[in-house]
Amino acid sequence: MTYPRYTPLIENLPSSVPFVGPESQERERKFLFEARLGANENMFGPSPKALSALKKYSDEQWMYGDPTSFELRCALAKKHKVSSDNIVVGEGIDGLLGYLVRLLISVGDNVVTSDGAYPTFNYHVTGFGGNLHKVPYSEDHEDIDSLIKQAQLVDAKLIYFANPDNPMGTHVSGIKICQALEDLPKGCLFILDEAYSEFAPASSLPDIEISDTRVIRLRTFSKAYGMAGARVGYGMAEESLIKSFEKIRNHFGMSRISQVGALAAIEDYDFISDVINKVKLSRNRISDIANDNNCKFIPSFTNFVAIDCLKDSKFAKKVLENLINKGVFVRMPYSYPQNRCIRVTVGLDKDIDLFEKYFPIALKES
Amino acid sequence: MTYPRYTPLIENLPSSVPFVGPESQERERKFLFEARLGANENMFGPSPKALSALKKYSDEQWMYGDPTSFELRCALAKKHKVSSDNIVVGEGIDGLLGYLVRLLISVGDNVVTSDGAYPTFNYHVTGFGGNLHKVPYSEDHEDIDSLIKQAQLVDAKLIYFANPDNPMGTHVSGIKICQALEDLPKGCLFILDEAYSEFAPASSLPDIEISDTRVIRLRTFSKAYGMAGARVGYGMAEESLIKSFEKIRNHFGMSRISQVGALAAIEDYDFISDVINKVKLSRNRISDIANDNNCKFIPSFTNFVAIDCLKDSKFAKKVLENLINKGVFVRMPYSYPQNRCIRVTVGLDKDIDLFEKYFPIALKES
Repeated sequence: MTYPRYTPLIENLPSSVPFVGPESQERERKFLFEARLGANENMFGPSPKALSALKKYSDEQWMYGDPTSFELRCALAKKHKVSSDNIVVGEGIDGLLGYLVRLLISVGDNVVTSDGAYPTFNYHVTGFGGNLHKVPYSEDHEDIDSLIKQAQLVDAKLIYFANPDNPMGTHVSGIKICQALEDLPKGCLFILDEAYSEFAPASSLPDIEISDTRVIRLRTFSKAYGMAGARVGYGMAEESLIKSFEKIRNHFGMSRISQVGALAAIEDYDFISDVINKVKLSRNRISDIANDNNCKFIPSFTNFVAIDCLKDSKFAKKVLENLINKGVFVRMPYSYPQNRCIRVTVGLDKDIDLFEKYFPIALKES
Repeated sequence: MTYPRYTPLIENLPSSVPFVGPESQERERKFLFEARLGANENMFGPSPKALSALKKYSDEQWMYGDPTSFELRCALAKKHKVSSDNIVVGEGIDGLLGYLVRLLISVGDNVVTSDGAYPTFNYHVTGFGGNLHKVPYSEDHEDIDSLIKQAQLVDAKLIYFANPDNPMGTHVSGIKICQALEDLPKGCLFILDEAYSEFAPASSLPDIEISDTRVIRLRTFSKAYGMAGARVGYGMAEESLIKSFEKIRNHFGMSRISQVGALAAIEDYDFISDVINKVKLSRNRISDIANDNNCKFIPSFTNFVAIDCLKDSKFAKKVLENLINKGVFVRMPYSYPQNRCIRVTVGLDKDIDLFEKYFPIALKES
């Protein structure tokens, strides 16, 4: 009998998983969630145009998708006023982050992120043997100046920065980002994860030339576009960086129906602005519920709200557990001091009704 | 201005792409193909049950798919009489091959495959810095004994073997595979790509215990199940190898609709056996057309037929080009001596009618 010989890197990796999905939690707890408010999914769903494209073209599923996602890239290029050569489409931002880390990080290379920021990015960095340097949040904001200072100190090849931020929902202005980038050390690529940017004011978008080799921006159809299940993310950057993805990506990784759905969704501007309004209303409602229960909400520019339960992480964890046991799936930040909060995704009225009903009880029982 | 610092491995990788999709060829040539007979897609399409599940659940697309593909893995486990812990689901066999290579291959590690076998596997091996050792085909069959001998010589960590084979469509018996595996060197994992196995006789399936750590078997919904566009592949192996994928895979890489579609498709046994019959009839028709044009067909156990044009690769290439220029998309093997052939995918009658019409002309003009 033989055995597989894993690489030394793989041998030493933990078997940990960045996120346990709600379905796994349901199976473990042997009941179904009544409200799914933990994964920052968008309950308002995709544009009807996307849905009808999905249905219309589902018969074409016998064909592989176009490995270049050409039409989708062209539509995105038009939307963002760049060339299709500036755009790479991939299996969600998660997939693109994996490729990006693989392009740049060998064993021992340094990477800078915020302590408590997106765990899937950390998962990929660890997975390729990179050294993660974590910088604390500053007043519930990712601290861009400190991130860049840390990158200078350790000669980092990558910085991860989300704007707006997840899990706190805060944002910084585009002008602030541009100023901070002036101090970006040479040879460091700045990953700007804009997954939630559609929910934020336009002023949070930095004015960065697409030819600027310091930055790659990541976007997704999972949030404002309500298509998390389709797995469509994209990156925008200077041409040669985009081209480098061709060396390693799974060229046939994209579902054909997802490509078609995303293409139809882009064009439905009215629907998206309606969704953004609905998200704002629901966000306000969650914020009000926080206030009504003598908690504090962190002003959010995303489709979720971090609620400060005004005690320690142990207490927040208990509130979370109580909510989950009552059928309301929510999540919470991983790191101190953000882990004094729980994070509640925007939802339909019926979902928020349940949260409104159970939150006071969950607090009382904690 | 900074610049990204790629890893040394990435710097040295070619920007080549394993397959140019038919859509790119159409854009380049400025016309649409009338028959799509080049990518071994299945024109008989998915089960109506899969299609109706797709349509029924398309509204659920706002949710991420279950990152564990639990229900799908359970259904596959039941079908194959193994445990769900023996199954990993991924973004097509292509995606799984990428993960598998990453698990085992560091720069300089040795890998054995057949000269002219699946280029996407080679792409991944090169992409992780592995050394590829290519063994010639023997009489249009992948030569399993020579592959294993070569693995012994170079202390390979991986062997790739497809049964039935692509691009020639030949197969070996399961008994032969089991015998050959007796000589597999220690520390070498045998990848058995069974993408086309549903089209082959049951005797081509080796009787290998799922606890056997020497082998991983790969299957797909892209061929017999007619769902290439959905990107659903799976691997079956001993538990600890399957578990190792958790360390590196894109946990949220699967489209939710694809998961649902695959689940519905598995259960439609009648539809699949009907498709397999239709494929056999169309394969026979392509074989007859080869004979009628004084060419030779290679007896196929897949959904395609390699046609020996009985001249050299230059001639076959011309025939291929002529067919493509007439709107019939076909492909051909990459390596000598298989590249004396063109490869024609099984299709609907209307597709094969076009091939029948244009093949004699393409031959004459070559």
